[in-house]
Amino acid sequence: MKRSDRLIGMTEYVLEHPMELISLPFFSERYQAAKSSISEDLTIMNNMLKQEGIGYLESISGAAGGIRYIPNVADNKSQVFLTALAKRLEDPTRILPGGYLFMSDLLGEPQTVREIGRLFASAFTNLDLDAVVTVATKGIPLAYAVASFLNVPVVIVRRDPKITEGSTVSINYVSGSSKKIQTMVLTKRSLKQGAKVCIIDDFMKAGGTIDGMRSLLKEFEAEVKAIGVLAEAEDEEDERVVTDYVSLIQISNVDVKNAKIEASIGNYFNHK
Amino acid sequence: MKRSDRLIGMTEYVLEHPMELISLPFFSERYQAAKSSISEDLTIMNNMLKQEGIGYLESISGAAGGIRYIPNVADNKSQVFLTALAKRLEDPTRILPGGYLFMSDLLGEPQTVREIGRLFASAFTNLDLDAVVTVATKGIPLAYAVASFLNVPVVIVRRDPKITEGSTVSINYVSGSSKKIQTMVLTKRSLKQGAKVCIIDDFMKAGGTIDGMRSLLKEFEAEVKAIGVLAEAEDEEDERVVTDYVSLIQISNVDVKNAKIEASIGNYFNHK
Repeated sequence: MKRSDRLIGMTEYVLEHPMELISLPFFSERYQAAKSSISEDLTIMNNMLKQEGIGYLESISGAAGGIRYIPNVADNKSQVFLTALAKRLEDPTRILPGGYLFMSDLLGEPQTVREIGRLFASAFTNLDLDAVVTVATKGIPLAYAVASFLNVPVVIVRRDPKITEGSTVSINYVSGSSKKIQTMVLTKRSLKQGAKVCIIDDFMKAGGTIDGMRSLLKEFEAEVKAIGVLAEAEDEEDERVVTDYVSLIQISNVDVKNAKIEASIGNYFNHK
Repeated sequence: MKRSDRLIGMTEYVLEHPMELISLPFFSERYQAAKSSISEDLTIMNNMLKQEGIGYLESISGAAGGIRYIPNVADNKSQVFLTALAKRLEDPTRILPGGYLFMSDLLGEPQTVREIGRLFASAFTNLDLDAVVTVATKGIPLAYAVASFLNVPVVIVRRDPKITEGSTVSINYVSGSSKKIQTMVLTKRSLKQGAKVCIIDDFMKAGGTIDGMRSLLKEFEAEVKAIGVLAEAEDEEDERVVTDYVSLIQISNVDVKNAKIEASIGNYFNHK
């Protein structure tokens, strides 16, 4: 097989298996090529991935070595994407009663969701996570997008137990902004004790939901290594019960009366 | 830029933009290469994608022409994947009260979900769909996976209206297996009138939920062009209200007493 053919196949394989250790003999056998040729291919690929601003190949030496594709979006690319996203969120027709924002259209776009996932994953690749945790319903697509780049499973916290889930652990928590008592459940067999996780959600006001998830995860002795929210509401900052998080977008001044929203890039670049 | 560098970049770009028309001048400019070179690159890529069993490049000629990457999993690859999936579903510890099966572990694996999405997309690429519709919660990751390969948005039907969604259309329907009256809602602005859609869900027993979705979609004058379910329960076939669907897996003989499940490949290959 020619180098050009091989590079197409290898690029596809590497991109579909982020964070996974791939040995040189694996490629060598798959494409019937000498290890030295494969090694050259990987050098070319590493340079090109960097140039495209989507990550790099990490080399692990030794007998059990190989390469791992580490997704990492270049800052200038992230900046362009987040600026455009913030601009789209400033559309005043998004304002809903109670100062909420309609975002389902954006969260319905697979490519937008995938790019959001790629950004969070870029910030979390060094945390050695075992799972991505989210709460139904809106956080689910984002959590899968993050997980697909980190190559770890998704665990979904529900607001109601379901028969098709088996036995569960549940907690009650107080919603930060509405001060209502709510319930959250997680299936017992969905998470191993002591897992290292990140929490992903679409929107954070006072952070009550995320704080509730943290309490629930304590029951599993899970270690919450990071929290990522697509958008945070700035005006709830004083009452916030969650302080250490990564946000892509910050929403400020949702002015229902004058139909105005201000959206800017969140604290993402402080965490990368 | 050398061909080898260009092929890596182009492969990544093409795979991230399935079903999208990409013009030769676009690549020509992006990689500072003559159109004739780009054209040769695309021929190499097309052959390699076919060889890897993950699809092909469709050429559209003329001034507004270019190529489109059509995801299409080779039958032998699908067979291997589905056989392994069926085997994993036969694990007797999956049996839950009521003859349900625990599948959250599989549905939590981003790579498994992505592969399921790729399979459904392969069967639906010629339907010219505008959106993928699913119902919260379990169908959501599958729907996004399908949508990411078809490059169309996801629309999520909910069981309860939410304040962050705006005005909704709702219907009542009778659940096929439990005969209970249930409600489904869809945000008004989430789907354009007359859209061509496919419905995706994780599990189908009698098909009441999917039938409910069809009724709700009628309110939007949407055209349901296809229905895809990950797993169908064979023993509910007689009572089934949905007959035209694509299933990846068929579950039969869930024997709670003797802790036995039989799972086989569904009707997928009849629809491809």
